[in-house]
This record gives sequence, structure tokens and C-alpha cells, in this order.
Amino acid sequence: MKKPLHVVQFGLGPIGIETAKTVLEKSKHGDLKLVGAIDVDPAKVGKDLGEVLRINERLGIVVSDKAEEVFRTAKPDVVLHTTSSFLDRIYPQLEMCIKSGVHIVSSAEELFFPYDRHPKLSKDLDELAKKHNVAVLGTGVNPGFVMDTLALVATGVCTRVRAIRIERVVDASKRRFPLQRKIGAGLTVQEFEEKKKTGTFGHIGLRESLLFVAEGLNWKLEKVDETLQPMVAPSEVKTPYLTVQKGQVAGIHHSVSGGTNGTTKLSLDLKMYVGAGEPHDAVFVDGDPPIELIIRNGVFGDSATVAALVNAIPLTVSATPGLKTMKDLVVPRVFST
Amino acid sequence: MKKPLHVVQFGLGPIGIETAKTVLEKSKHGDLKLVGAIDVDPAKVGKDLGEVLRINERLGIVVSDKAEEVFRTAKPDVVLHTTSSFLDRIYPQLEMCIKSGVHIVSSAEELFFPYDRHPKLSKDLDELAKKHNVAVLGTGVNPGFVMDTLALVATGVCTRVRAIRIERVVDASKRRFPLQRKIGAGLTVQEFEEKKKTGTFGHIGLRESLLFVAEGLNWKLEKVDETLQPMVAPSEVKTPYLTVQKGQVAGIHHSVSGGTNGTTKLSLDLKMYVGAGEPHDAVFVDGDPPIELIIRNGVFGDSATVAALVNAIPLTVSATPGLKTMKDLVVPRVFST
Repeated sequence: MKKPLHVVQFGLGPIGIETAKTVLEKSKHGDLKLVGAIDVDPAKVGKDLGEVLRINERLGIVVSDKAEEVFRTAKPDVVLHTTSSFLDRIYPQLEMCIKSGVHIVSSAEELFFPYDRHPKLSKDLDELAKKHNVAVLGTGVNPGFVMDTLALVATGVCTRVRAIRIERVVDASKRRFPLQRKIGAGLTVQEFEEKKKTGTFGHIGLRESLLFVAEGLNWKLEKVDETLQPMVAPSEVKTPYLTVQKGQVAGIHHSVSGGTNGTTKLSLDLKMYVGAGEPHDAVFVDGDPPIELIIRNGVFGDSATVAALVNAIPLTVSATPGLKTMKDLVVPRVFST
Repeated sequence: MKKPLHVVQFGLGPIGIETAKTVLEKSKHGDLKLVGAIDVDPAKVGKDLGEVLRINERLGIVVSDKAEEVFRTAKPDVVLHTTSSFLDRIYPQLEMCIKSGVHIVSSAEELFFPYDRHPKLSKDLDELAKKHNVAVLGTGVNPGFVMDTLALVATGVCTRVRAIRIERVVDASKRRFPLQRKIGAGLTVQEFEEKKKTGTFGHIGLRESLLFVAEGLNWKLEKVDETLQPMVAPSEVKTPYLTVQKGQVAGIHHSVSGGTNGTTKLSLDLKMYVGAGEPHDAVFVDGDPPIELIIRNGVFGDSATVAALVNAIPLTVSATPGLKTMKDLVVPRVFST
């Protein structure tokens, strides 16, 4: 009989709660075993994890804010890390995991392709991970799959690729409330522009997806252009959480592109707004042969992010040590169904 | 500067001629170098490869029917093997490549997932490859990508998968003549049924794709059903090579499916016929979340097969030794554009 991989859940926000539940689900088949949970929220620390997950079952796992102690006592193989999007903030957490000899699968968007924004931290992480013989991966649905890994896979049957355009249109009406708020639904256009100036607005990871695809194709992009615009509601839109008046912001239109010799070779175009018609994911490869890949209705982000993280566990654990990206791992697939 | 991978082309049929040309194209970037060519056709042996490829350029590579000698003198890193679909026929060729310490990327459909049809040969190949420290892969567009690897990738963002349906509709009017003949275009229905009885008709590799996906999902299928029917032309169809009268065979409809407890969990449905409307590739995943992935117009088979083979070179060379399938390799992508 195979030995299940032992998992610690690090971070119990909305995504972490769902990944923990999915690990419990997979435990039934003996592939995974949840052995610890870490969070700093005083409302969660000290409680049984079952209570925090609201699953009406005591799990015998007490939520702790002492990460090192959890690693020392629970001795996990891998940590599912879901605390923040930003590498400089999570670096000490990752460092602790690595020094405890634990593989990492993280939802941190910046970790999906950290080399450009954080060259020094990337190098340090890679060296530390190699020293402690573990693999470190950042993944998810976006960044992680629909606007990057899937596009790379689509080129696998091309002899030549001249340009790629990647689109994602998400109807945010169907997503959770924090996402609707994050994309500015219900703001005035002026409020949107003010928030934009803070630099912490928009989708995190789009630039990372672009650079991941470029590196996967061995393209040296000369410059990267990035734009963020509001999607304005043409008429009133109601969601279970809020109402957007006609003329108010319904969400974001975020684009990045890069090229060589003044020609755009790679562009990623993301629209996330409430009331979006015909949501979809698409990859258009101008290549030999050309590829027009569409995912009708798009990949539903909330559950797909959870899936991408849990499915990455066996791929990461069996990878060579170091800082990895999705293109360094074997072909992704659902884990244990 | 990186050292290019040295390649020998083994087999100079229609596919081999195109893979050799693509390797030459990639040589311009210094990623690959063609160092030898093997074929048994007396019309090709002894000729300069440039002449056989009809590229109006002498390459200084003489086509040889002495494989062992080519390997000994050219010392390639990898062989592009395109001689036959059937593993028992090509086994001695593969054996010779392996014993010469050469990695193999082969278009042989049965090699894509050989474990079911040829358990003994698969085991022998794997052991031999490990002994000689090389990797052996069978791939292509179908089997190899559209009806198997792509489907597996699509499940990478699902927490659970209940069933998968994979479709491919190919308009054979646009494909090369041997393919049109292979699918029976222009036969009467009776002639089709006679040819079917010989057991060497239909698409090769569909069962392999099914079993590959099942293994990738860790599904144990109880039984596999396979059907092969003619697609009958509802009206006259003309291609550059032939004319199919109304009521004659336009091509094939080939299906395989498998399941558990009397329920079909996985089905692959392939229609290849002249005059097919709305050609496409599709993967429908009944999962959480559900995925409806469509490639409009379908992946064009002739060039995509060539691409899949050449793109697999770097993935195979960097794999651990042994008999591999696409799910054991890192994420596919175009090689050197």
C-alpha cells in the first residue's frame, strides 16, 4: 500500500479553507493526509480545524500560529501555502518551510514566475531549496494555468510560432464577494482611477504569466506594456452581493503585451467584470499550424485555483529540488479521482 | 554557447521527410543538428539527403540502410524514428538505437502507450533503455496530443472528474492522399466492411489514447468498447486527389470507450472523412469545475505530427531513462522559435 503524502495547510483564508477541504476529500482515497494547519488570525488559532472549516466534524488538528512548531511535530511532506500574493511578504514563511525540509505549493501570484520582479529573492529561494532538497512552486488558475501553462501546451504541436494572443473574460457576478470588491465593482470611474494610482489594484500575476510564456518559448521580449482600464456598466447589474449602477465601474480590463522589433508577439488580455457576456478563455497561436483554443464559459476561477494547487502536490514532490515553475514540472492532471 | 543536439532521422516516408526538414530549420538557431539519415528504400539509399528531401541543397549526409553503422559514426544524441506504426515490427530498430546509447522519439502509434497491447515488449524496452541510460517516447498529434495529453492537461484545474468525452472531427479533404486512402474515401460500403474484417483498418492509436488518459487519471476501466463505422457521403465530394460519389464511403467513424460499474466514464470519438463540416477538437470534462475545451477547425494533423515529434526532443533527452509516455515528461511546448 502506498503511503499518503502528509500536508500542512499554511493560511486559512477563503482559498486555504477550500484547499484544506479538498485535501480532506482526497484523504478518503489514501493519497493525502492533512496533518496540520497554520494561521495568525486570533479568531482561528487554538480552534479545531474542523470548526474553522465549518464541516461539523472534529479533526483533531488544532490551528496554530507557530509554524516552526507545527513543522517540527507534524513532519509534513508538503505545505499548501495560501497567505499572500506578494513574495517579499511571504519570504520568511517560505524560508521556514524550506529549512524544515518541506516541499511548497503556494498560491502567491508573484511566486508563479518571480525571476523578473524579485531576481535576488528568486535566486536565494532556489539555492535554499536545493540545499534542503525540496521543490518550491507557485501556481493557481491565473496565474498558473489558463493564461500561461495552457498557452504553452497549445504550442506543443506547432513547428513555428510567430505570435500568441491570450484572452480571459470572467463574469465576476458568479464569483465570491472579495473578488467583486477587488475588481472595483460599484466604484465610480473617478474612484477607480484614484485606487489605480495606489498601484495595488488590478489582477496580480498578469505580467508573470506573460514572462513565463515568453521564457517557455525562448523569446526575449524587448519591452512590456501594461494597461489597466475600468469596464463601465452599460446598464444596471445586480449580483447577490452588490448593485452596479449604469455608468459605474463593473470591473477591470487589464492587458499586458510584449514584443521584439516594435512588433507585438505576445499579448494577454483579461476582462473581469460583473455582467460579462460570453465568458471564455482563449489562446490564439499564430503558428504552423495555427491554433484557436477556446474554453467555453471559461474555467471557473474559485474552484479551479483550489484544484490547481492540490493537483500540483504530486508533481512538486517528485520534481528535482529548487525553485520551479509550471513548465519545469510534468504534464498537469487531476490528482486522485 | 550551447551545444546543439545531434539528430539522426530514421525513416524517410512522408512524415520522416517533414521531420528532417524541420530539424534542418531548427539547425539555423543552433538547437539541433542533423547528422544522419536511415532508410531501406533502394530509391533513397546512397543519395544525398538534400536530394531525397527535394530541397535543392546538398547536405553531405548520405542516406544509409545500415543503421548500426550510422549510429557508430554519427554518434547522435537522439533519433527521430518514423518507420511504422506497429511495435513488434519496429522493436529490432528500437533495440539497436537503445544499444547505441541514443534517445528515441518515435511516431509509432503503438509506442504512445504500449503497455496494454505489448506488455512484454514494453517491459523489455523499459529495462533495456534504463540499462543504456536513454529515454524512449512515442508521440505525435493523435495519438500524442489532441485526444489524450490535452485532455489530461484540461483536468489539471479540476478537483474531481466524473467523466470525460473527447472528440475529433477531421476534414480529410485537406489532408495528404495516403491519409484519404487510409480512411477508405471512395470505397463502397461493402468494400469498407471487407477491409474492416482484415483488422488493419481504422485509426491506429485510439485505444492507446484511451488507456493513457485512464492511467493518467488513475482510473481502472473494467472494459473497453470499440466501434468502427463508415461515414457515408450524403452527396458527391471532390478532393484534389479523388472523387467520392454520393453513397460511397467518405471516411471513418472510430470510437472507443471505457467505464466502471456499467457507466461510461471515458469516451473518444474520431471522425475523419472528406467533406466534414466544422472540423474541431474537443475535450468535455464532467468535473468540478466542468471544462469545455474546443480547438476550432481542429489541429491540422500533418504539420502537427511533425511538430509534436520535433518538440518532444528536448523533453525526452532531459527525462530520466526508460520507456516514457507524454505524461512522464515536462509540459510540452514549441521548441526553439
